Amino acid sequence: MFHAEVYRNRRRRLISQIGSGLILLPGHLDAPMNYVDNPYPFHQDTSFLYFVGLDQPGMAAVLDADSGTEIVFGSDPTEDSIVWTGPLPTIREQAEQVGISSTMQIEQLPQILRQARQQGRMIHTLPPCRPETAIQLHRLLDIPIDEIPNQCSEPLIRAVVEQRSIKSSDEIRQIESAVEITHAMQRAAARVARPGIREYQVVAAVDHACRWHGGMPGFISIVTTHGEVLHNRVCTETLQPGHLLVCDIGGETPLHYTGDITRTLPVGGRFTARQKDIYAIVHRAQRAAIAAMKPGVEFRAVHRLACVELARGMTAMELMKGDPDQAVAAGAHTLFFPCGLGHMLGLDVHDMEGLGEDFVGYTDTIRRNPTFGWRSLRLAKALQPGFVVTVEPGIYLIPDQIDRWQARNQCRDFINYDALQAWRDFGGIRIEDVTVVTESSCAILGPAFPSTAQQLEEMILSEQSRKDSPY
Amino acid sequence: MFHAEVYRNRRRRLISQIGSGLILLPGHLDAPMNYVDNPYPFHQDTSFLYFVGLDQPGMAAVLDADSGTEIVFGSDPTEDSIVWTGPLPTIREQAEQVGISSTMQIEQLPQILRQARQQGRMIHTLPPCRPETAIQLHRLLDIPIDEIPNQCSEPLIRAVVEQRSIKSSDEIRQIESAVEITHAMQRAAARVARPGIREYQVVAAVDHACRWHGGMPGFISIVTTHGEVLHNRVCTETLQPGHLLVCDIGGETPLHYTGDITRTLPVGGRFTARQKDIYAIVHRAQRAAIAAMKPGVEFRAVHRLACVELARGMTAMELMKGDPDQAVAAGAHTLFFPCGLGHMLGLDVHDMEGLGEDFVGYTDTIRRNPTFGWRSLRLAKALQPGFVVTVEPGIYLIPDQIDRWQARNQCRDFINYDALQAWRDFGGIRIEDVTVVTESSCAILGPAFPSTAQQLEEMILSEQSRKDSPY
Repeated sequence: MFHAEVYRNRRRRLISQIGSGLILLPGHLDAPMNYVDNPYPFHQDTSFLYFVGLDQPGMAAVLDADSGTEIVFGSDPTEDSIVWTGPLPTIREQAEQVGISSTMQIEQLPQILRQARQQGRMIHTLPPCRPETAIQLHRLLDIPIDEIPNQCSEPLIRAVVEQRSIKSSDEIRQIESAVEITHAMQRAAARVARPGIREYQVVAAVDHACRWHGGMPGFISIVTTHGEVLHNRVCTETLQPGHLLVCDIGGETPLHYTGDITRTLPVGGRFTARQKDIYAIVHRAQRAAIAAMKPGVEFRAVHRLACVELARGMTAMELMKGDPDQAVAAGAHTLFFPCGLGHMLGLDVHDMEGLGEDFVGYTDTIRRNPTFGWRSLRLAKALQPGFVVTVEPGIYLIPDQIDRWQARNQCRDFINYDALQAWRDFGGIRIEDVTVVTESSCAILGPAFPSTAQQLEEMILSEQSRKDSPY
Repeated sequence: MFHAEVYRNRRRRLISQIGSGLILLPGHLDAPMNYVDNPYPFHQDTSFLYFVGLDQPGMAAVLDADSGTEIVFGSDPTEDSIVWTGPLPTIREQAEQVGISSTMQIEQLPQILRQARQQGRMIHTLPPCRPETAIQLHRLLDIPIDEIPNQCSEPLIRAVVEQRSIKSSDEIRQIESAVEITHAMQRAAARVARPGIREYQVVAAVDHACRWHGGMPGFISIVTTHGEVLHNRVCTETLQPGHLLVCDIGGETPLHYTGDITRTLPVGGRFTARQKDIYAIVHRAQRAAIAAMKPGVEFRAVHRLACVELARGMTAMELMKGDPDQAVAAGAHTLFFPCGLGHMLGLDVHDMEGLGEDFVGYTDTIRRNPTFGWRSLRLAKALQPGFVVTVEPGIYLIPDQIDRWQARNQCRDFINYDALQAWRDFGGIRIEDVTVVTESSCAILGPAFPSTAQQLEEMILSEQSRKDSPY
């Protein structure tokens, strides 16, 4: 964890912004996979992690915004728990590590909250992302389960988002370390993505590289020859020469900052000419977007710029036609790029998404555009120094969409449906990196890493000729 | 999945046992890791999987025990879902694969259940293991969240446990395949467990072997130099010569039957003399237990037999004293073996544990023994042909426990506390295999696999001299 002072400062700032009432931060419980004692790997609530820093299940914190008192709730080891899970530190010892001196057993939490409610005090909570947390809040605060989202504290959400959006230099270093783990994962994919290998075996290699370097996957690794499916989950296809393999993967550091990088690899080691053409369009769009990013620039404008760049490339390829700016204004680009350009990243891969996407990416005046494609844009507002944002344009040839659009004659002034027929089975290409907005511009985080088609081919050649054991 | 007939027969039998009312089987939803759109890898509810066989989130089934009607509820693909998750089969297509012809959209489920309740029909449900399922049942059946465990159908629990307890030959083959995946995981551990490697790197290698062979870990891999901690979760220790490394791991097949095998490896490739001595005791206890298992024998008697075997060995080592039978009667063995000998295994690593351990492992006349050690025994009742059971004795030197017992002078007639001091830091040894009860005896499932100390040393030597890439 970071130094106690880091967490203390974060909490002080939060308390001063909220001003009055209690701030209740429940940590996560273990999430059962198929029964209570067979949980998924533990993942702490990321706002609890940000402000309290403790990474054990079954904890909570209460910050008193009037008095400044901070209490950590948890469970001390018992004779039984020592047998099963070993001698863990007491709650007091854990709380001291993050600069909190008051502790109580978790069983005391209901009473503390009951008292506060009897005194008519406001209890600020965040929207729970886990159903078990919703049940906890239901029990603790006597709110009907379905009412909980409406009873959350908007001032608390806004204060948390404001603070977590600007990454400190400590956090940037963590994210750089996550990016390095993710690079190792990408190299493992390059090494193993040979004809005859199954997609799930590439996932095996990618996740292995992550854990070998002390990380944990920050999200389910997307490794697919069906790159046109944005979040494909089926991984049983056998790789064949000529396939494009989209690898959208990210590793978390032990402090749970995550990476999120996509590369699209040519199975067999060489892109075909048409793959190279599309690849170059996506790469150009990504670099143009990054070059345009700096404080004050709205990310929706960067998204639009990337869309125009993609449309310009597709027009040059004669798969689109007409004026690229007008094509984008008409939404024609969403046939090939139906999603957003990027999202904030930090302790969550879509940072703070559990608090509400609109609080994170939009403002009272910059509202979500509800049209197809645009409505998937997670970040629209003006960039600020310290924002960490992914930039991930792509071109996706989705046969179902092509058929549907063509049947409706949708955007026929901008889409060359006849030419498209020969591209139905192309698949998809995405390129994604993690960037940080600096005082004057924007930089890709982490060491240099192959991004052009030629660099990827070189990486595959080099990785596949390695003889050392990855173990 | 299995042939449709398999699932149809299972449901028919369940329906005829329940006789009347509706049987509601909700499948699992995606379980959010840090926010809704970042879920853990999907794992289906295992009773839903057993009777309905479909492995997608957000489904449910209703079986009408009066009319025999069966309905599967789910969601058909939408234009949006095709973009994000690809073209999936319709509910109808999925249901047909498992022999069900009636389907409805999941949104229709509340109405179907409301009608049934208005008609005063009984709705049988199982205890939900996931909080999101509890919330679903709360909404669907209008039961207060905390009342749900009390409102489950005991007849349904008993009927499900009865059926799932006896594994068919199809299921045995699946478990054998899970055991083979688990053997590959154990071999990966043997290959990588060298001095200087971190515990989490062994986990990385073990999980890699699992996924490379098309499996998924059936539970969080326990890989620890602190084998005395039964379910140790911290994996940051660096392996050193002389360490014992307990690897309690299991892989699931694509149909979600799981393995669960423990080996204890000597880091550096050679057991010390005292490690060999303890190893031999545990191994003898395991083989004696398996030799005693056959239909009609109560597993609590097998557990006792293993305990006596462990006590006899510890007495020969002069770490215990007196008569081993009397020592076990006094509970002295629980200083070294504080847990149960084994558990059922199938679609869950502790099979059906979510339905209630006592329904699975005990009967109306064979009740749980509440004393320390014995109370952790998950299975006590008489064995039947088709039971699949793990057998996992161990000897654990737990310094905290030794100190506590010695301070209380606990079982001083059976424990040689003076001699024990030199063994405080020994760690722990566990040996676990998966067995099936046959018509007349019991057999270890899967191909032959190293189990003696000498065989493990040979496996380590052979694995660590391999030059081929595990990728």
